[in-house]
Amino acid sequence: MNSKLKVVVIGGGSSYTPELIEGLINRYHELPVGELWLVDIEDGLEKVQIISDLAKRMIKKKGLDINVRVTLDRRLALQNADYVCSQFRAGCLDGRIRDERISLKYGMIGQETNGLGGFANACRTIPITLEICKEMEELCPNAWLLNFTNPSGMVTEAVLKYTNIKAIGLCNVPVIMEKGVAKIIGANEGEFIMQVAGLNHMIWARKILHNGEDKLKIVIDEILKGNDPLVPSNIPAFNWPKDLLRNMGMIPCAYLRYYYTSYDIMKQEQEEADGEGTRGEVVKAMEKRLFDIYKNPELTEKPKELEKRGGQYYSEAACELMASIHNDKRTVMHVNTRNNGAINGLPDDCTVEVSSIITKNGPMPLNVEPFPNDTLRLIQLMKEFETLTVESAVKGDLVAAKRGLILNPIVNTGTILDEALKETVRENLDYMPQFRWMFE
Amino acid sequence: MNSKLKVVVIGGGSSYTPELIEGLINRYHELPVGELWLVDIEDGLEKVQIISDLAKRMIKKKGLDINVRVTLDRRLALQNADYVCSQFRAGCLDGRIRDERISLKYGMIGQETNGLGGFANACRTIPITLEICKEMEELCPNAWLLNFTNPSGMVTEAVLKYTNIKAIGLCNVPVIMEKGVAKIIGANEGEFIMQVAGLNHMIWARKILHNGEDKLKIVIDEILKGNDPLVPSNIPAFNWPKDLLRNMGMIPCAYLRYYYTSYDIMKQEQEEADGEGTRGEVVKAMEKRLFDIYKNPELTEKPKELEKRGGQYYSEAACELMASIHNDKRTVMHVNTRNNGAINGLPDDCTVEVSSIITKNGPMPLNVEPFPNDTLRLIQLMKEFETLTVESAVKGDLVAAKRGLILNPIVNTGTILDEALKETVRENLDYMPQFRWMFE
Amino acid sequence: MNSKLKVVVIGGGSSYTPELIEGLINRYHELPVGELWLVDIEDGLEKVQIISDLAKRMIKKKGLDINVRVTLDRRLALQNADYVCSQFRAGCLDGRIRDERISLKYGMIGQETNGLGGFANACRTIPITLEICKEMEELCPNAWLLNFTNPSGMVTEAVLKYTNIKAIGLCNVPVIMEKGVAKIIGANEGEFIMQVAGLNHMIWARKILHNGEDKLKIVIDEILKGNDPLVPSNIPAFNWPKDLLRNMGMIPCAYLRYYYTSYDIMKQEQEEADGEGTRGEVVKAMEKRLFDIYKNPELTEKPKELEKRGGQYYSEAACELMASIHNDKRTVMHVNTRNNGAINGLPDDCTVEVSSIITKNGPMPLNVEPFPNDTLRLIQLMKEFETLTVESAVKGDLVAAKRGLILNPIVNTGTILDEALKETVRENLDYMPQFRWMFE
Amino acid sequence: MNSKLKVVVIGGGSSYTPELIEGLINRYHELPVGELWLVDIEDGLEKVQIISDLAKRMIKKKGLDINVRVTLDRRLALQNADYVCSQFRAGCLDGRIRDERISLKYGMIGQETNGLGGFANACRTIPITLEICKEMEELCPNAWLLNFTNPSGMVTEAVLKYTNIKAIGLCNVPVIMEKGVAKIIGANEGEFIMQVAGLNHMIWARKILHNGEDKLKIVIDEILKGNDPLVPSNIPAFNWPKDLLRNMGMIPCAYLRYYYTSYDIMKQEQEEADGEGTRGEVVKAMEKRLFDIYKNPELTEKPKELEKRGGQYYSEAACELMASIHNDKRTVMHVNTRNNGAINGLPDDCTVEVSSIITKNGPMPLNVEPFPNDTLRLIQLMKEFETLTVESAVKGDLVAAKRGLILNPIVNTGTILDEALKETVRENLDYMPQFRWMFE
Repeated sequence: MNSKLKVVVIGGGSSYTPELIEGLINRYHELPVGELWLVDIEDGLEKVQIISDLAKRMIKKKGLDINVRVTLDRRLALQNADYVCSQFRAGCLDGRIRDERISLKYGMIGQETNGLGGFANACRTIPITLEICKEMEELCPNAWLLNFTNPSGMVTEAVLKYTNIKAIGLCNVPVIMEKGVAKIIGANEGEFIMQVAGLNHMIWARKILHNGEDKLKIVIDEILKGNDPLVPSNIPAFNWPKDLLRNMGMIPCAYLRYYYTSYDIMKQEQEEADGEGTRGEVVKAMEKRLFDIYKNPELTEKPKELEKRGGQYYSEAACELMASIHNDKRTVMHVNTRNNGAINGLPDDCTVEVSSIITKNGPMPLNVEPFPNDTLRLIQLMKEFETLTVESAVKGDLVAAKRGLILNPIVNTGTILDEALKETVRENLDYMPQFRWMFE
Repeated sequence: MNSKLKVVVIGGGSSYTPELIEGLINRYHELPVGELWLVDIEDGLEKVQIISDLAKRMIKKKGLDINVRVTLDRRLALQNADYVCSQFRAGCLDGRIRDERISLKYGMIGQETNGLGGFANACRTIPITLEICKEMEELCPNAWLLNFTNPSGMVTEAVLKYTNIKAIGLCNVPVIMEKGVAKIIGANEGEFIMQVAGLNHMIWARKILHNGEDKLKIVIDEILKGNDPLVPSNIPAFNWPKDLLRNMGMIPCAYLRYYYTSYDIMKQEQEEADGEGTRGEVVKAMEKRLFDIYKNPELTEKPKELEKRGGQYYSEAACELMASIHNDKRTVMHVNTRNNGAINGLPDDCTVEVSSIITKNGPMPLNVEPFPNDTLRLIQLMKEFETLTVESAVKGDLVAAKRGLILNPIVNTGTILDEALKETVRENLDYMPQFRWMFE
Repeated sequence: MNSKLKVVVIGGGSSYTPELIEGLINRYHELPVGELWLVDIEDGLEKVQIISDLAKRMIKKKGLDINVRVTLDRRLALQNADYVCSQFRAGCLDGRIRDERISLKYGMIGQETNGLGGFANACRTIPITLEICKEMEELCPNAWLLNFTNPSGMVTEAVLKYTNIKAIGLCNVPVIMEKGVAKIIGANEGEFIMQVAGLNHMIWARKILHNGEDKLKIVIDEILKGNDPLVPSNIPAFNWPKDLLRNMGMIPCAYLRYYYTSYDIMKQEQEEADGEGTRGEVVKAMEKRLFDIYKNPELTEKPKELEKRGGQYYSEAACELMASIHNDKRTVMHVNTRNNGAINGLPDDCTVEVSSIITKNGPMPLNVEPFPNDTLRLIQLMKEFETLTVESAVKGDLVAAKRGLILNPIVNTGTILDEALKETVRENLDYMPQFRWMFE
Repeated sequence: MNSKLKVVVIGGGSSYTPELIEGLINRYHELPVGELWLVDIEDGLEKVQIISDLAKRMIKKKGLDINVRVTLDRRLALQNADYVCSQFRAGCLDGRIRDERISLKYGMIGQETNGLGGFANACRTIPITLEICKEMEELCPNAWLLNFTNPSGMVTEAVLKYTNIKAIGLCNVPVIMEKGVAKIIGANEGEFIMQVAGLNHMIWARKILHNGEDKLKIVIDEILKGNDPLVPSNIPAFNWPKDLLRNMGMIPCAYLRYYYTSYDIMKQEQEEADGEGTRGEVVKAMEKRLFDIYKNPELTEKPKELEKRGGQYYSEAACELMASIHNDKRTVMHVNTRNNGAINGLPDDCTVEVSSIITKNGPMPLNVEPFPNDTLRLIQLMKEFETLTVESAVKGDLVAAKRGLILNPIVNTGTILDEALKETVRENLDYMPQFRWMFE
């Protein structure tokens, strides 16, 4: 056994990487990383170099012995890796912006993990991810894949269904909820258990166990008062239907606003698109600023500005996950993993996002108490959308795509969907070889 | 036992009644009706008199011995009834028009059996229907209730859940489909079995068994060629997603256009509302013309013009149903009845629309083969909407209303839903006593 | 299309065949059989000749034009057949007797369709049946297979799972129950619907619909009084746990005595085995007598004596089934067919015995209302035994055999099961080629 | 909040109590018990005094400040208790012996937690336990009930269904399995996770996670070699069907020998009954010897001899459970708790035995991966037996009793069951007031 670990980051040039570096530095005592490989593509070379330089400065400052390597040769990096973090963005931010703009053009909410945009993102991302996994099966079959590439739930489902790689999907949404809960109940991390369940970007906090009590009601009351630290900072304020929240006995994550307040979100997105730009456009500008900061040779730590990005805590979660696996810590974390009966009413082989204890063998989900029927129906519907989208993304199956999209409540159906789908594929053709047949 | 039957029609002044009269006349040999009671409310007195006069002329022409009675006293009519046909419209056509206009005002499809309009209609209709059933429990506990008041599925569910009355819900949608299928495959009624399953206004033809073959594919091919006699005449042409239809292995009923082509329907409805008027408004004008025709003392049969109304064949189905029960005919008909396991994945105690053999003991559903998963998810979602709507209609529960409406894909959620709901209740307050608390 | 039908009987030399001939004669007007082929094996040649001669005399007496043919060449018979009736007994009555004796030797109930004996019978019968089906796929792919070879449920499941043949399994148990019910309620066949559901030899009457009432309770009361015409004449009287019967809301078939009165049956069987002989031995003697009667050249009709055999009405059911299919009669019959959701809680692809309407496309099961939980558990357990037995019979899988047998409540487990299984296979080796590996 | 805890032991005079005392002493640093109340009945006064004296000597030797109190007044003891350990035996060992002897007399396995004996024990124990819980609801509503009174699963189910008390059922079977596994894989407690699932006395080890591997196969191989440290010392050697064990992918607990090797166990029990006596009789003699040892005023620790009792580790498990709750330790333990979806295919409100993390809020079960279908069927069957037994025990419902017992594979059905049941009730009438109606 290697005494030190090899960690590979696919999409190493991401603006989030400094958070990951910080996380590795902070956990060095329990997660002894020897090599950190940052992998990126030709077009991302400049960015990944900036990140690599910053990483080296950060590590040097702390006097640690982590060897940072940059490469465009993914196979070289994967060789004998222990942990592979997937955080690339297929088609870069321009792909995301395209998804948002096409959706809006056809009267739909534009979003990178749901609806038509989520479909497009899945179709761009899944083929590349499966390619990575094939390489992993050959070069590092025992490595763990930590996926935080969006749409994280569907990407993880594709890996677990179509490859032999041990994969765990991560998201910062439950992390942010947990930090918000901690503030409200006045407890430190680890002192309480917030149990969540659902699908990626579609979870509900089911229990908040602290000191022998379930403090769920206390937290809901606080949210009803207008104090909602559970919502990520990049999500603008919005209005829960309060009587619903008061009565549902669980706390919906912020992304559920797409279902509970679809009209408000649509209006908001249209205003943004006509004003400061879509979320993707805002992020693109933000990223530019971040890299200017990263370039500064004086900078030897993760800059404060990164916290404004929506993905905050992603990488922290990734580091904690690696540390928990490595040390069989049995920490309770919230991960995307194979359902296997955790959520009743969903297929065993689909992927769900559930609170789990993290062991050296990976996540063991905590049992999820049955959902209220109306919530279950929504989850089942959306999981079917996801499953059909994964199938479509893998096989280039247009009928599966439509069957899935038609179910999705934020998708407009009919002739408009045919047109929107066609435009989506045409504009993404370089990233969607599986659908090239449509234009042949 | 009475040698002759007593049939009661609640909402006897409906423009459909002449079709019912015709049906009773045609089946007199097997369904010996002695008394036909037409019940209506004060405001409908003129209409029901016109209908009664026409009915008497029609019966007289055939030389039959059916005693037609008009009354505003429902209890008098129900006394010892054998069959009670419920076809009243709570709030009359103005209620329907209001539902359509309010929905459209808030950017939603306006429809009398689905979405916000279906919710409103259910809330107006269910309390009155339960009242009728309470009277039936006292005055004619063994009578059959044949409900074709919309929303027929939800009204039937309310009766089966909250009363002891033997109720069957009817709809003309499957009847029209069956007649269309007959045309395509060149077979007469009764020579083939078209098996349907789903919820009211949400059924799929699953099998078309004729002469030892399943002719489903033949019928689908014909529909794909643009020849679709399965769609009711009152429904304007619309575009199925053809690749879907070709691959789904079943035939969706016309009302499924709300899910498969939501955008097109929305656009169409908006154009209609700005032009000739909403469906309710068109129907209102049509009804006026019909009653002018009915008044003609020369008229001694059901006029041709009635066939343009969407409800065509409703009453024929009702007569066939009564005849099948009365004679234990075991005809295959398509009815709303208690699920009891017929559709796997739905609660036993909910109401579904399924092909059944009709016995003297009522309907025995044919087993429904498992639905494809995506279709099942849609049915489950909509049944949950229906169940919550029924609960809300019975109890005046606003949270249940919202939980249901939020699931419904043709409903806009968020602040707009709060407003639309409030307006709906306020404008219907006379018919929705259960929600009066909202304005106290 | 042939104007006259070709019917093939596999195991034509069975003592039941005269009943089948009688049935065909009686239904000649609606089921115009042109050729009747009696197929048997070398060892059965004498018997099948006797049957054939009797058949010819019976047909001649009625002046009908049915051509009776005897052959040992199954392929010749199957060519272009319309209906194939399977009623052979693999290993003849000696096989049955062996099953009974081995079971008893190891302290278990000995029975040809259940427990260790049922397992042995399935393992002898299924390979031959699948062979027949392979031939049918080639020689008469559109023919219907009517199986009444025991264990009928498992044999039908094997055919439906492993071949493309349209197969229906039949049993006389529900027929006898129905005739018993008719006596009690004083109704003629067809005037009422007795709905049964469960597995072959494990059914319950769930409803007895007659004249608008469910007369189940009336029938149960009669049985409780000691008058039980629902039990086949070959089954000795036995004691239902009366308080159970009074409270279960359904009527168990006679074979359920193996579960509800296991001890009494065991004692009875042991006494019989020590006295007049096992059931197989009794039947063997009875058969000898029957064939002596059949030989009589004066005999031109089905003799009374046949009615004492347990299989009474089997063949009548077969004829009615053929007539119903041929004429799309939609009669309610009780058949073994693919579950497909008919009984909730069982796999879609397993075979169940359920009341169905019989169409030209085969059986369409009536929906089965959910079973009480305790009954469901028993059905699920026994279906699992059956499914594992089928798997074992097809693949020669000993572990599957044990996993199934261990579940069966009438099987002794432990070292004794290992021994009993070994003896069973060794003594049946000629008929169980799939298990020959055990002795190699 | 009290700084020190009050622990109450119902059935304090049990011979196991010294193990409990030892456990409390060993965990004093993390589980600061101030008062230990030993409650017993009049007849047990001598024994509980002996135990109390020994406990005081043990505590004094360690110099701890735990106040030991003996009382016959249960209410006094329960006042403000923090933890209530239920370990009484209704009807004492004579009741157990009676159960065994009656079962054997009627040809059935005699066992205190299963079959007819388990039924009798449940009927004696559940009414008393519910009485205790009613008192707890009044006197210490927030206390935890730790039940290890047999049949532990059914008793816990009764408490969770019929009272508001927070109850956890415990058993030493999984503890002993875990210790056996530790030996085989050479790991210390806490270094690996053995996940079990099923019902009390009907569990399977599903996973043995150690150091990133699942060592289940390694452990099975060792058991197949004849080395089985997972079986409690009080259970005589027996023969697994080895091919089954090799293929089932999980490790059955020792009590599953009643299903997998029923014949061998029956033979063994009959031999024992004719020889050294039934298990109850052996235990009775053993207890007598133990109390002679306990009386010795020189004895200041738990004597070695106690380890020969079958219940070994029960009390250790109880102490660890209290410590885990008190300190929110999140240890993985194996407990009886409300199913709530943990085992798919069982009702939410039934009680199952599953590995759980223990928090200050009680157990959170780990998700159980779906069982193989044959195993699931057995679990479902037995849970139905248990649920009907609980219902019968609470309500004195004889039909529910029979419906349950008939399902149980180790019960003989028929007239013999009626007799055996009658004798069981008659001989236990003092402890089964709910069935007194049978003799009135």
